[in-house]
Amino acid sequence: MSVKLKTAVLGAGGYSGLELTRLLERHPRLEKPVLMRRENGSDGAKDLAEVFPELSGNGGYPVRPLSWPELKRQGVQLLFLATPHEASRSLVPEAITQGLRVIDLSGAWRLKGEQHRAIYSFDDADEATAAELTAMAVYGLPELNADRIATAQLIANPGCYATSVILALAPLLNAGLIDRRHGIISDSKSGVSGAGRAPTSRTHFVSVADNLSAYSVFNHRHVGEMVEQLNLDDAELTFTPHLLPIPRGILSTIYVRLNRPMKPAEVESCLRGFYPGQHWVRVFATPKLPEVQFSLHTNYCDLGFCLAADGQRLVLVSCVDNLLKGAAGQAVQNMNLMYQWGEREGLQ
Amino acid sequence: MSVKLKTAVLGAGGYSGLELTRLLERHPRLEKPVLMRRENGSDGAKDLAEVFPELSGNGGYPVRPLSWPELKRQGVQLLFLATPHEASRSLVPEAITQGLRVIDLSGAWRLKGEQHRAIYSFDDADEATAAELTAMAVYGLPELNADRIATAQLIANPGCYATSVILALAPLLNAGLIDRRHGIISDSKSGVSGAGRAPTSRTHFVSVADNLSAYSVFNHRHVGEMVEQLNLDDAELTFTPHLLPIPRGILSTIYVRLNRPMKPAEVESCLRGFYPGQHWVRVFATPKLPEVQFSLHTNYCDLGFCLAADGQRLVLVSCVDNLLKGAAGQAVQNMNLMYQWGEREGLQ
Amino acid sequence: MSVKLKTAVLGAGGYSGLELTRLLERHPRLEKPVLMRRENGSDGAKDLAEVFPELSGNGGYPVRPLSWPELKRQGVQLLFLATPHEASRSLVPEAITQGLRVIDLSGAWRLKGEQHRAIYSFDDADEATAAELTAMAVYGLPELNADRIATAQLIANPGCYATSVILALAPLLNAGLIDRRHGIISDSKSGVSGAGRAPTSRTHFVSVADNLSAYSVFNHRHVGEMVEQLNLDDAELTFTPHLLPIPRGILSTIYVRLNRPMKPAEVESCLRGFYPGQHWVRVFATPKLPEVQFSLHTNYCDLGFCLAADGQRLVLVSCVDNLLKGAAGQAVQNMNLMYQWGEREGLQ
Amino acid sequence: MSVKLKTAVLGAGGYSGLELTRLLERHPRLEKPVLMRRENGSDGAKDLAEVFPELSGNGGYPVRPLSWPELKRQGVQLLFLATPHEASRSLVPEAITQGLRVIDLSGAWRLKGEQHRAIYSFDDADEATAAELTAMAVYGLPELNADRIATAQLIANPGCYATSVILALAPLLNAGLIDRRHGIISDSKSGVSGAGRAPTSRTHFVSVADNLSAYSVFNHRHVGEMVEQLNLDDAELTFTPHLLPIPRGILSTIYVRLNRPMKPAEVESCLRGFYPGQHWVRVFATPKLPEVQFSLHTNYCDLGFCLAADGQRLVLVSCVDNLLKGAAGQAVQNMNLMYQWGEREGLQ
Repeated sequence: MSVKLKTAVLGAGGYSGLELTRLLERHPRLEKPVLMRRENGSDGAKDLAEVFPELSGNGGYPVRPLSWPELKRQGVQLLFLATPHEASRSLVPEAITQGLRVIDLSGAWRLKGEQHRAIYSFDDADEATAAELTAMAVYGLPELNADRIATAQLIANPGCYATSVILALAPLLNAGLIDRRHGIISDSKSGVSGAGRAPTSRTHFVSVADNLSAYSVFNHRHVGEMVEQLNLDDAELTFTPHLLPIPRGILSTIYVRLNRPMKPAEVESCLRGFYPGQHWVRVFATPKLPEVQFSLHTNYCDLGFCLAADGQRLVLVSCVDNLLKGAAGQAVQNMNLMYQWGEREGLQ
Repeated sequence: MSVKLKTAVLGAGGYSGLELTRLLERHPRLEKPVLMRRENGSDGAKDLAEVFPELSGNGGYPVRPLSWPELKRQGVQLLFLATPHEASRSLVPEAITQGLRVIDLSGAWRLKGEQHRAIYSFDDADEATAAELTAMAVYGLPELNADRIATAQLIANPGCYATSVILALAPLLNAGLIDRRHGIISDSKSGVSGAGRAPTSRTHFVSVADNLSAYSVFNHRHVGEMVEQLNLDDAELTFTPHLLPIPRGILSTIYVRLNRPMKPAEVESCLRGFYPGQHWVRVFATPKLPEVQFSLHTNYCDLGFCLAADGQRLVLVSCVDNLLKGAAGQAVQNMNLMYQWGEREGLQ
Repeated sequence: MSVKLKTAVLGAGGYSGLELTRLLERHPRLEKPVLMRRENGSDGAKDLAEVFPELSGNGGYPVRPLSWPELKRQGVQLLFLATPHEASRSLVPEAITQGLRVIDLSGAWRLKGEQHRAIYSFDDADEATAAELTAMAVYGLPELNADRIATAQLIANPGCYATSVILALAPLLNAGLIDRRHGIISDSKSGVSGAGRAPTSRTHFVSVADNLSAYSVFNHRHVGEMVEQLNLDDAELTFTPHLLPIPRGILSTIYVRLNRPMKPAEVESCLRGFYPGQHWVRVFATPKLPEVQFSLHTNYCDLGFCLAADGQRLVLVSCVDNLLKGAAGQAVQNMNLMYQWGEREGLQ
Repeated sequence: MSVKLKTAVLGAGGYSGLELTRLLERHPRLEKPVLMRRENGSDGAKDLAEVFPELSGNGGYPVRPLSWPELKRQGVQLLFLATPHEASRSLVPEAITQGLRVIDLSGAWRLKGEQHRAIYSFDDADEATAAELTAMAVYGLPELNADRIATAQLIANPGCYATSVILALAPLLNAGLIDRRHGIISDSKSGVSGAGRAPTSRTHFVSVADNLSAYSVFNHRHVGEMVEQLNLDDAELTFTPHLLPIPRGILSTIYVRLNRPMKPAEVESCLRGFYPGQHWVRVFATPKLPEVQFSLHTNYCDLGFCLAADGQRLVLVSCVDNLLKGAAGQAVQNMNLMYQWGEREGLQ
């Protein structure tokens, strides 16, 4: 095997950052990643094993203050950001200037449209640069954008909910089979790691256990990604997220009306045909449906469906592990594309 | 206080039966209920505290084999059935013949329409009697059918999912505000006690924990009740139940399109106006939404909603404790109506 | 029934405070309790239903700033404190001066011994008064101290762990059957509500779910109560608390060596004989053991045991609901003693 | 890399069997394992992905009826048994006759002593062979028995609880530092997968969630392994298992009295010194203690401790994933020893 790639992770102290660090250190094409923290990052740990004792016994995970010269000195070529979107917005221009390729797990660069700008509010020092980076950023959903990902310098890694919804809807929308004007509904449910590591009254064990709650109805940030990537009008998609009493995993139950009565075999064929040879999407044969557990701790997006007797009311079920296919795993999948490696490398 | 009513429970060995027994023994209008078991009932316990040790220390809960003469001798006037629907189907004709009033928690008598008969398959010894009882049975949803419940001899206690969906939709459907032809969707989630006490691979802890799964899509028995009570065509309602990793509680997220753009205050007013003075329905002011925990261990049905900016896409959220408002609590509420007691008695 | 007692709760915004408020408002001997908050209390809610939406629909739970004149004006005679121990330490002297009887759920007044003072550090304005109150405070474990509780002005309500351990050990220690010098071990496990409502990384859902952890080994505050109430030397008791992935409930597994070989029937007899006619302690017949679920949402302390074949190694299992018998329920039980009411009133 | 080893798994349909299958298929030294089922095995699936849909998308996991000629034809050299101990007892003699090396995950061959025979009751067709195999079987705890494992034909893979307890106690017992006559206590807690896949009322989600229970006190099968491997008398070890509301993971809290007062550094040194260069045992520096989560989904056994101020009362905490270090992972570790491969291979 040839020379190994040198990567760095900024923001490894969150849940996605931890998963990413684990994936990168086992990836056969990579040297052990360099871990860095922002000067004023909330997490001042000098070694990641202090924050995550499960990392003990593997020789240490030193986390150094961010330093561009140091990254250059170590020969880092690819930088992963697992930082809040505000931090990404100020850090990525610097990283690009340094000539690094960047995979940003935050929402900072995902949205292109004028009408969605307000979803994330930014305080850009240089608006022209921000606009330029927004334009050049590639939405890193490998099953949809493989060609552009391969040559991208900046990847906007998709949101977890968005991944589950877009991958379920893309085949049928692309084939023009869905009655968009009727409206599409995604009733999505996520484990608590999706809310981040910061302790709040909402993530307190007693608030979550033995409970289920809907939140951010008609108001969740990921809707912007979904409608942009699926070419929908905002009013064509209703998205309702719920907080599940589980640590990780997403299940989206998606309701669409087909343009014409179809048979289950046609629907299945449409789904399978859209993802030929794509390892990380699994299509289940109706009436077998995916469950959260099936894709947990994997990079799979699992898709299944049930069709009403009328052949037009269709329920799609889509599951991902929010920390893997919904974050760190997808980032690795993007890296594999960027360096022409096999799509499964480092993800088994 | 006047003479106390004598009641009996058949099938106290299930989760609903346990809750019912507890409610009845604390009800100020009742003597301690007589507990009976079917001859061939799966649960042969001689005392309910053997099955549910949490009942220890209160003087015993003897369970005797079912005997109509014994019920008569003890002066029982009201019989609760917490039995499988097949058992109810054969037992209720006898109970009615004995002159008892009956509240049946099973699905045996809930459905009236020809087209829904096949949902539950029965092996009736006397089809004429079965048809007669089906006709006389009152669907025991107190907020909708109070008058008929008051004089009923046979109450068909509603299903848990059905309760959460019907109570959320009745106000707006009744006011003609919902575009029925557009279709109504209920994405419902239930705790595991809804699946009963019988151990199966589906209710195994390891199958449920850290998981979420959809099941019986386009195919769940409770849909029949919902469409009959709401006067919908079958194809107008899509219902998807999910199994939550919690012991009890239901949350239904319901999607409707309004016939005309409305304001949130109008929606709230419609909901509140439909349940005037009804203690057991609580309407939350948008954007506050009910959560499963809020109604747990209570007889409340909690309703909330969010309205899209377009004023037509409406998301309703409805929560009940499946064992109380969805089963045993509602049965007690029905009893309170049947005997002209206060709706809260024995349910605080 | 005669005139109802007027009570007040300070600190109702915590988990124990919520349970207490619910118990008090349903207690047949009481008027609806007055809820008060400290000026600088962390929880500034004007109505408790803002903090706990499950309280909606019952006419409101106004929380007013603490005011001694207002308490007097309303005729409050008994004050419950569900405040941090530091706050209790400064508030109780005032309350006593006002002539109120006080039940303090905090640890402020539980410890008498010189050697245990350092367990809670206080900044008393008036040390003489603090010493006087410490001396007059009665440790509110009704099964042990009923007589003194009946006449007390100040009750130090026991800790949750301490309740489970003391009630299990008192019968055998009192009978001189335990080899104290051999050492006693309590391996205790508690649900997360025991850690309070403040969100921390330790109470984050993702930290607790799918986990178990020991903490404060050889170093937990409740040990002081246990050894004082059981007349043990500090080194005779080893106590290890663990954090369970459940919202509430405590199970203590306690290991003792008996002074002489005994038979199970003798052990059972000793346990039962120590609690004659005590409703809130349930003794299970070996080999049946209590489980956390059995006493959840009740005021019971459940006791069970297994004896080794050698007749000397004894394992005791003790369960309480940490928010009821371990806090609010026990406070109500103490109140019932203080006013000569039945021990079950308001606790069924 | 040289020719890959061919292995087979009998009983892959259980939780340990699934984990084992996953480990074996990713092990760099192995061909994809052959999966077989007993003729009358409870699980008749023709493909393991039918039982475990999470295995979908990897080309199928055919399970064939057990056939010795077929195993020979395929060149299988090493057979893993994840079968009930009764089945292992009749199958292993055949396998040994066929010249296969065997790693048996059941309890069939773990116990040597006369006094422990009754723990597992067998119906051996040929008692002489059974005795011979019992004598030749090596207890497969790699950290203790590496030399004998390397040359063994039959490995008795340890029990999950036993692994956690033995690895914690071996260093101090071996150094003669523990007062054995005082008695050793292990208060152990396990996730539900330890109880197997068969649905029972005990493994029903509603029975386990929000609960904790002790079971098999003074009566658990794994005690036999512990005392045999640690050279203890039966009465010197008290073992109390508990069922945790989590899918997997074990935490044992172990109480010992040291023969003389020690310092924490000495204890730590004893633990570390006993496992030099052993990758799969991690010793935590006091007061940091392992938690269940830290070793979940890994092959680690994590050890930590707290020492009382008196220097003699010692609490050890030991965690393993019951399906990995407690079953399938340990089996792979044994295989690595048997074939002189690195101890980490296939286990990262």
